[in-house]
Amino acid sequence: MTKDNLSTCHNRIKPFIHNTPVLSSRLVNNLVGADVYFKCENFQKAGAYKMRGATNAIMQLTDDQKSKGVVTHSSGNFAQALSLAAKSQNVKATIVMPSNSPSVKKNAVAEYGGHIIECEPTIKARQAAADHIVNETGATFIHPSNDPEVILGQGTACMELLKEHPDLDAIFCPVGGGGLIAGSALAAFYFGNYCEVLGGEPLEADDAYRSLISGKIETNTTTNTIADGLRTQLGHHNFPIIQKHVKQIIRVSENEIIEAMRFIWERMKIIIEPSSAVTFAAVLKEKEQFKDKKIGVIISGGNVDVNNLPF
Amino acid sequence: MTKDNLSTCHNRIKPFIHNTPVLSSRLVNNLVGADVYFKCENFQKAGAYKMRGATNAIMQLTDDQKSKGVVTHSSGNFAQALSLAAKSQNVKATIVMPSNSPSVKKNAVAEYGGHIIECEPTIKARQAAADHIVNETGATFIHPSNDPEVILGQGTACMELLKEHPDLDAIFCPVGGGGLIAGSALAAFYFGNYCEVLGGEPLEADDAYRSLISGKIETNTTTNTIADGLRTQLGHHNFPIIQKHVKQIIRVSENEIIEAMRFIWERMKIIIEPSSAVTFAAVLKEKEQFKDKKIGVIISGGNVDVNNLPF
Repeated sequence: MTKDNLSTCHNRIKPFIHNTPVLSSRLVNNLVGADVYFKCENFQKAGAYKMRGATNAIMQLTDDQKSKGVVTHSSGNFAQALSLAAKSQNVKATIVMPSNSPSVKKNAVAEYGGHIIECEPTIKARQAAADHIVNETGATFIHPSNDPEVILGQGTACMELLKEHPDLDAIFCPVGGGGLIAGSALAAFYFGNYCEVLGGEPLEADDAYRSLISGKIETNTTTNTIADGLRTQLGHHNFPIIQKHVKQIIRVSENEIIEAMRFIWERMKIIIEPSSAVTFAAVLKEKEQFKDKKIGVIISGGNVDVNNLPF
Repeated sequence: MTKDNLSTCHNRIKPFIHNTPVLSSRLVNNLVGADVYFKCENFQKAGAYKMRGATNAIMQLTDDQKSKGVVTHSSGNFAQALSLAAKSQNVKATIVMPSNSPSVKKNAVAEYGGHIIECEPTIKARQAAADHIVNETGATFIHPSNDPEVILGQGTACMELLKEHPDLDAIFCPVGGGGLIAGSALAAFYFGNYCEVLGGEPLEADDAYRSLISGKIETNTTTNTIADGLRTQLGHHNFPIIQKHVKQIIRVSENEIIEAMRFIWERMKIIIEPSSAVTFAAVLKEKEQFKDKKIGVIISGGNVDVNNLPF
């Protein structure tokens, strides 16, 4: 994927996404000992950066493909993003969701115009249900993270951040399926000025950390983390990009995630989801490494069930 | 208070406050049927607009007065604001707080450098404790809302909002002690283009609503509202300004406050306190009146105990 691919992608999706604000806080800067710039994708449409990749993937389809719709399986932010992105492109979106998904998530998908198909809550059943729809309707399956067009789309958040702050020394992203960090790593490589990319990952779902050590894709042994967006598995499109361009992955505990989340809520007065708190927790853990430097943090999303908070 | 008083005040305090961002949301605009601009004082230093008035009041003291310190009684945002404002002016602040204040509030005051004196949790004991400190130390008592210098300071939020959006048809504020709405009403009168000012007030603490009807300051019969910042009593400095320049005060129920707060949290992803939700609830209640117009909303603060939420 080239610099030009990223620029073209950004121009393509720009009319359909928000150029989200970049916030900073003196209190945070004092705590970290560095200048920290938060790219607030919690203010993105549908509440997360996923809107970028979903929009790009749909816009790259042929008219014939578009007429047959798109399908994905997700119970998280990608389900909502694909539903809304499809609506804005006049394309039908079918979302396979496990039958035990919280009703708040099903309602959000339905509200954005997604057509929900329920399945048994297993990975196998999810894939089977999606395959069935593809075979029946000719719809195109779009993976939430392991797809080159999705990766490019996710990279545009980092491009925008670097446009505002071209001299960042490092950018921190959360790592789940790897779409955001892979896209960000490409963006930092092409548009940054020797800007490093680092990932934050829950100790309880540390497949990317272990994959970088072993040199092959490792699977999660547990996914027992509050960071629901990061329970997914690294993909084969993302891993080589991460291997090549990501400097380090920092693992954080559940307590560190919750404390980081509380700090951002209480002090910056913005709502971030646990997966975004993972990133800030990683910054706090590695702050000595970045003393007096300028660092960016991608706040990936703000979709939280306010009736079910960890504090 | 003149146009020039406001401009001079703004120039005076500018180096010590944030020019807070103005946010908008398509979702909110669709819901309200108008263009809505939120002036985000929840991002202000110490988490609320109170920092403006506190800073101005302290800066207007003589050097002799400054050397003897300031004192107030408050268990809310003004306690924190006066502590921080005093610190930035190198002045000692003593805060009289009821002994039953939540420790989270005492900690915040202490963290900002305020010196806490505890008293019995009655209005009489609070005033007596403050009077005692004034008599003992020669410190200057600064009232949280009923003080001309405080009123001028609070008005600067509205000035900044009108500078960014000079053509607002109306601005909504919460009404508690009346400092913010009085200052905003002056700012709208001097700097707006026929810009009306409206207040939101809890039904459970509706002294300002009733005072406007009777033409004299009425007292609260209940203060049983979640909007802790609005339980206070209208003052004699604020009331004449409100009588002259405020168009209407809209009362909202506790349910309407909580629903408005949840909506802003979930959809705009920013943390606002219940007193700010009162204002947005008032906008929703009167939306027919402002169809297709441009309205400003002062989000007064974001200081919430995340361990004790109404949802």
